[in-house]
Amino acid sequence: MVPTLRDVAELAGVSRSAVSRTFTPGASVSAETRRLVEQAALELGYHPNALASSLTTGRTKLIGLVFNNFHNPLFLEIFDRFTRSLQAIGLRPLIINLTDETDPQNSVQMLRQYSVDGVVLASSTLPLSFAQAFRDAGMPIVHSFGKYSSTPKVHVVGIDNQECGRLAAETLLARGYRHIAFLGGPEAATSTQDRMTGFLNVLKAHPSVDVSCSFAEDYTFKAGRNEMTRLLSANRAEAYFCGDDVLSIGALSAAQDFGLNVPGDIGLIGLNDMEMAGWENINLTTIGQPLSDIITASVDQMAALLKDPEKTPESRLFACHLVERGTLRPLRA
Amino acid sequence: MVPTLRDVAELAGVSRSAVSRTFTPGASVSAETRRLVEQAALELGYHPNALASSLTTGRTKLIGLVFNNFHNPLFLEIFDRFTRSLQAIGLRPLIINLTDETDPQNSVQMLRQYSVDGVVLASSTLPLSFAQAFRDAGMPIVHSFGKYSSTPKVHVVGIDNQECGRLAAETLLARGYRHIAFLGGPEAATSTQDRMTGFLNVLKAHPSVDVSCSFAEDYTFKAGRNEMTRLLSANRAEAYFCGDDVLSIGALSAAQDFGLNVPGDIGLIGLNDMEMAGWENINLTTIGQPLSDIITASVDQMAALLKDPEKTPESRLFACHLVERGTLRPLRA
Repeated sequence: MVPTLRDVAELAGVSRSAVSRTFTPGASVSAETRRLVEQAALELGYHPNALASSLTTGRTKLIGLVFNNFHNPLFLEIFDRFTRSLQAIGLRPLIINLTDETDPQNSVQMLRQYSVDGVVLASSTLPLSFAQAFRDAGMPIVHSFGKYSSTPKVHVVGIDNQECGRLAAETLLARGYRHIAFLGGPEAATSTQDRMTGFLNVLKAHPSVDVSCSFAEDYTFKAGRNEMTRLLSANRAEAYFCGDDVLSIGALSAAQDFGLNVPGDIGLIGLNDMEMAGWENINLTTIGQPLSDIITASVDQMAALLKDPEKTPESRLFACHLVERGTLRPLRA
Repeated sequence: MVPTLRDVAELAGVSRSAVSRTFTPGASVSAETRRLVEQAALELGYHPNALASSLTTGRTKLIGLVFNNFHNPLFLEIFDRFTRSLQAIGLRPLIINLTDETDPQNSVQMLRQYSVDGVVLASSTLPLSFAQAFRDAGMPIVHSFGKYSSTPKVHVVGIDNQECGRLAAETLLARGYRHIAFLGGPEAATSTQDRMTGFLNVLKAHPSVDVSCSFAEDYTFKAGRNEMTRLLSANRAEAYFCGDDVLSIGALSAAQDFGLNVPGDIGLIGLNDMEMAGWENINLTTIGQPLSDIITASVDQMAALLKDPEKTPESRLFACHLVERGTLRPLRA
C-alpha cells in the first residue's frame, strides 16, 4: 500500500493540515513539526503526493522548457532566469533539448509523454510551425524570443527584431560608417530575416551607403568566425552588424587574426548583451535585449494560460537598447 | 471523467495496443494509425498516462538535475550532455536551480515535492552534506563532479582533483617556471582544496620554487579578474594555475589590462577545457576534464540505481589530460 498523508499525520502525532503544510512551499510550519513529519514520511516511504493530486487536478505543474541551442552562452542566463522564475511560483522546469530536431510532431509527442501542463519555447530559430503544433495539440504554449505578429496565433514574448535591425543601422550611420554589412545568423530563422529587414529598410534611404549581407550557419562562435574570415578575405566593409553576440565574438576573433584593430580598422556591433559581451577582454558594443523582462513576462503569461487556456493569443514586445562599449568608433560631433 | 486509453482506442477505431504504441517512444506504428490516435486523443483531451502509470509503478521517470552556478559557461555543455543522455533513455530532466541555497534540507524537501525518482547533483562546490542529505532521505543520488572518496558513502562520478593539481604543477615545472601561484576557486569548495593539495604536494619536493596561493570568490569571470588584479598589483608570479577556465579567462583579462603579454610575461593554465578555452581569441592552455565520460557514467549510474537502490556506493574517476594551447611558454628542450 502506498502510504497516505493520514498515515504520516498519525505516526508523527500531528494534524493532517500540519503534514500538508510541511510539504507546501512557503507554508508556515514549526521546525519541530517539520522534523516529526519528515521523519514519519521517511519511515513510511511517503512522498507528498504531487502525483496523486495531479491525477485529480489534471495538473502536474511541469512546464516543458524547450531549447535548441546549447552552444550560445546567452542560454545559460536564460536557463538561470527561467528556472528561478518557475520555481518561485511552484512550477517545475522540465528541460527539453531539441538540438537537431526538425519535426514539430516528434516534439509534441515527447511533451505529451512528459505530461507537462504547458510549454515554453525559448528559441529565436525554431520555425512558427513548432509553436503552432503545440497549440494544435491543445497545449498551453508561450514562444519566448519568438516572432512578433500583429495577429498572434500563439502567445509570443520577445523583441521586435526589425526594430533591432533599425537601431543597428541608425547607430552605424550616426558613427559615419558608409560601407556597412549585415552578418546574420541562420538564414532561415525569422529572427535573422527580421533583423536584416529592419536594417535594410533604414539603409535604403541612404543610397550612397554601400550595403551587403551574408549569413552564418548558426548562432555559434565558430560559425561567426568562419563567415567573418570569408568576408575579410574578400571585400571588407567598414562596420558589421552581427546577428548576435556570440557571432560577433567569433567575428572579432577573425578580425584579430587578420591583424585588424577594432574599432580602429573595422567596427562591430552585436545583439543580446549576454554576460560575455561585457567581459573586459571582449568589450562588445551591442544591442541589449531585456532578458529579465522577457522571461518574467513569459512566466506570467504561462501562469495566466494555466488558469485560462482560452486566453486570447497576445504578442508582448519589449524595447531594445544600445549598449555602448568598445567595438564602434565614437559618435561624430 | 478523465478519458482512458480504451476511450481513445474506441474513438480512433484502433486496438488498445495501437494507442499504447503511439505513445511509447521508439515503438512502431503507422503514420495513419498515429494520425487517428492523435486526433482521438485531442478530441477527448486524453494524455498518455505517464502519471497514472507512475502511481502504480511508483516511478515518475523524473530525474532532478541540481545546479548551483549559472555564471560558469562550462555548465551549458553540461546541460546539453545531461539532457540529451537522460532523454535518450526515457528519463526526464527536471532542472533544479540551487543558486544561493545553503540548506540541504530545503533542497531535499523541494525534490520530494517534485516527485523525482532520483537526483543528480552536478556541482564541484556543493558540500558533501547535500549528497548525504539526499541519501539520508532515501533518494537515489549521484554526485557528478563531486569529491572522490576511497570509502564512498554516495555515488560519485568525476575526476581526482588532487591529480589535476599534480598535473598542473608538473606542467609548470617542466616549462621552467620557478615562481608559481595557485589562483583557486571558492576556498571552502572541496574541488579547490583538492586541486591545491595536489599542486602543493608536487611543489614541496622543489624547495627552490617560490609558491603562493589565493582564492577567487566563486567560479566566475569577474571573481577571477578581481583576484588576478589584486595579485598583479602586489607580487607577480611567473605562472598561475587557475582553479578553472572561467577564472583563467578573467585572470587573462586582468593581465591584458596590466599590459602583460601571455605567455611572454606570465603563464596561465586553467582546468576543464570548456568550449571557450578553445576560442581562438582566448586560446587557453588548460587541463581537460572528460565531460562526456563523466556525464555518460553519471547517467548510467543513475539508471543502475533506479533498478537497484541498494547498489553499493562507488567512486568513478576519469583521467584528466593536458590541452596545449597558447598561454604557457613551450617545453624546454
